[in-house]
Amino acid sequence: MQTAAPGKSRRLAAATLMAMENLKRFLVALCAAAAAGVASIIFVLIWVLLYKEGLAWDGGLAEFNWHPVLIVIGFIFLQGMAIIVYRLPWTWQCSKLIMKFIHAGLNLLAFILAVIAMVAVFDFHNNAKIPNMYSLHSWLGLIAVILYCLQLVLGVGMYLIPITPVSWRAAFMPLHVYGGLLLFTSVIAVALMGITEKLIFGLSNPKYKDSPPEAVFVNILGVLLVVFGALILWIATRTSWKRPSDQILHTRHTNGGGEDNTKVGPVLCQLSDGTDAEACGDVRRRSAKLDDQAN
Amino acid sequence: MQTAAPGKSRRLAAATLMAMENLKRFLVALCAAAAAGVASIIFVLIWVLLYKEGLAWDGGLAEFNWHPVLIVIGFIFLQGMAIIVYRLPWTWQCSKLIMKFIHAGLNLLAFILAVIAMVAVFDFHNNAKIPNMYSLHSWLGLIAVILYCLQLVLGVGMYLIPITPVSWRAAFMPLHVYGGLLLFTSVIAVALMGITEKLIFGLSNPKYKDSPPEAVFVNILGVLLVVFGALILWIATRTSWKRPSDQILHTRHTNGGGEDNTKVGPVLCQLSDGTDAEACGDVRRRSAKLDDQAN
Repeated sequence: MQTAAPGKSRRLAAATLMAMENLKRFLVALCAAAAAGVASIIFVLIWVLLYKEGLAWDGGLAEFNWHPVLIVIGFIFLQGMAIIVYRLPWTWQCSKLIMKFIHAGLNLLAFILAVIAMVAVFDFHNNAKIPNMYSLHSWLGLIAVILYCLQLVLGVGMYLIPITPVSWRAAFMPLHVYGGLLLFTSVIAVALMGITEKLIFGLSNPKYKDSPPEAVFVNILGVLLVVFGALILWIATRTSWKRPSDQILHTRHTNGGGEDNTKVGPVLCQLSDGTDAEACGDVRRRSAKLDDQAN
Repeated sequence: MQTAAPGKSRRLAAATLMAMENLKRFLVALCAAAAAGVASIIFVLIWVLLYKEGLAWDGGLAEFNWHPVLIVIGFIFLQGMAIIVYRLPWTWQCSKLIMKFIHAGLNLLAFILAVIAMVAVFDFHNNAKIPNMYSLHSWLGLIAVILYCLQLVLGVGMYLIPITPVSWRAAFMPLHVYGGLLLFTSVIAVALMGITEKLIFGLSNPKYKDSPPEAVFVNILGVLLVVFGALILWIATRTSWKRPSDQILHTRHTNGGGEDNTKVGPVLCQLSDGTDAEACGDVRRRSAKLDDQAN
C-alpha cells in the first residue's frame, strides 16, 4: 500500500499529459476544419462577386448566385458546425440540453438557407425558361433537402420533446447519427456536381476545358469543400474527442474487462465506441435520472 | 440456486432469438446492397451498350465507355464488397489472415480496374484533342486513385507483412478504417460528377435539360450508386454485425461495467464500438497470442 500512492500519481500525471496531447490534436483538426470551411465561404463569395454577376434578388443570374453562396454557408458550413458542436471543449460546461438546442438551431438555420437557395434556382430557371429538376444534381439535392427536413423533425421529436420514451431515443440514435453524417456527405457530393454543372454552363469563351482562371479557382473551391467534409467526419467519429461525461460513462463500461486500455485513461480511450455510443450514453444517464448531475 | 438454471436458459433462448433477428436484419441490408450494386452494373452496361457507342479499345467514344463501366464494377462495387467482406457470416469460419488477403485482393483488383478506366479516358482525350485534367471531376478522381494506392500500400505493409510492430498496427487502424470509408464515399461522389459531365457533353439533341430517356435512365444510375454507397456504409459501421471473435472480445470489455447491455447478449451489443474497434480487437488478440485460436 505504500507504493500505491506514487504509482497512482504517476499514472495521473501520465493521463493528464496524454489528455493535453489529445486536446492539442483536437484543436489542430478543428482549426484545419474551420480554415477549410471559412476558405470555402471566401472562395464562393469571390466566385459570385468577382467572376460572376454578383448577388441580387432579380430573377436573373445574380439571383441564381445566392444558390452556391447559401449552400456553402448554410447547408455545408453550418451543418458541419452543428455536427461537431458537442465536441468543442469550451461547451462542456454547458448543459446537454442547451447544446441540443444549439445543435438543432444550427441545423434549422442550415435548412432554411438551403430552402432559400433552392427557391433562388427555381426562380431563375422559371424566369429563363429553363426546365427544373432534370439533372442528377437536382434530384439528389431535392432528396437531400427532404431527408434533412425529416431528420430535423424526427430529431426534435425524439430528443427535444421530454415525453419521448427513453427506449425510442436509444433505438433511434444510431440512425440519427448515421443519417446526419450521410446527409452531410451527400450535400457536399451534390455541391460538387453543382459546381461541375455551373462551370460547364457558365463558361463559354474560354470554355471549362480551356482552364480559364475561374475554372481553376472554382475547382479549388471544390477541393476545399472535400477537405472541410473530410475533417468534420474525422472530428465527428473520434471517440476520444467526445464530451467528457459521455466518455467517463464509456470508460466505466470498458474498464471493467481489465484489458489494456485501462492504461490509457478515460480521455484517451480511442479503442472503441462509434458515434452510436453518444446516444446510448445519453439515454443511460437519463434512465438513471442522472442527466442534470452528469452535465 | 434452484431458479438460476431456468433463468439462465431463458436468457440464452432470448439471446439466441435476438441473434437470429440481428442476422435477419444483416441479410436484408446485404441483399439490398447487393441488389443496388448489381443494378448499378446492369444500368451502366445498358447505358454504354444501348444508349451509347458500346465498348471497344479504339481510341474513340467506345473506348471512353470503358471508363464508367470499370469505375462502377471495380472502383465502386468491388471496393464496396472489399469493405464489408469481414462481415459476411459465411466467412467467419475462415482465418482472419485469409480474409485479409481477400480484402486486399478485392481492393487491388478495384485499383487495377480504376487505373485501366483512367487510361481509357486519357487515350480518348488525347485522340480527340480534348485537354486532360481540367475538371473538378478529374482532379478529385486522380487524388482518389493516388490516395487509394497509398492506402493499399500502407494497408499491405501494416497488416500483411508479419514483422510490422503491433503498436504500429493499432495506431494506424483508425486512419485505415476512416481512410477506406472516406475514399469509398469520395469515389461515388466523383462518379456522380462524371455522370453529370457525360450527360451534359453527350446529349445534344435533345439536350440533358430536355430530359430524354437516356438522361432519366442515367440519373437513376446515379441514385442507385448513392443507395449502394449508403448501404455499404451502414453495414460497415454496425458493431453488431462484426465477426464474432471481435464481438466476443468487445463484450468482454463492455459487460464488466454491469450496465444494461448485459441483458442483450454478445451478438446484439450495438451500444458501442465504432469501426475503430475492429483493429484494436485484432491487435489485442495478436498481442495475447490468441490469433489462431480465436479464429
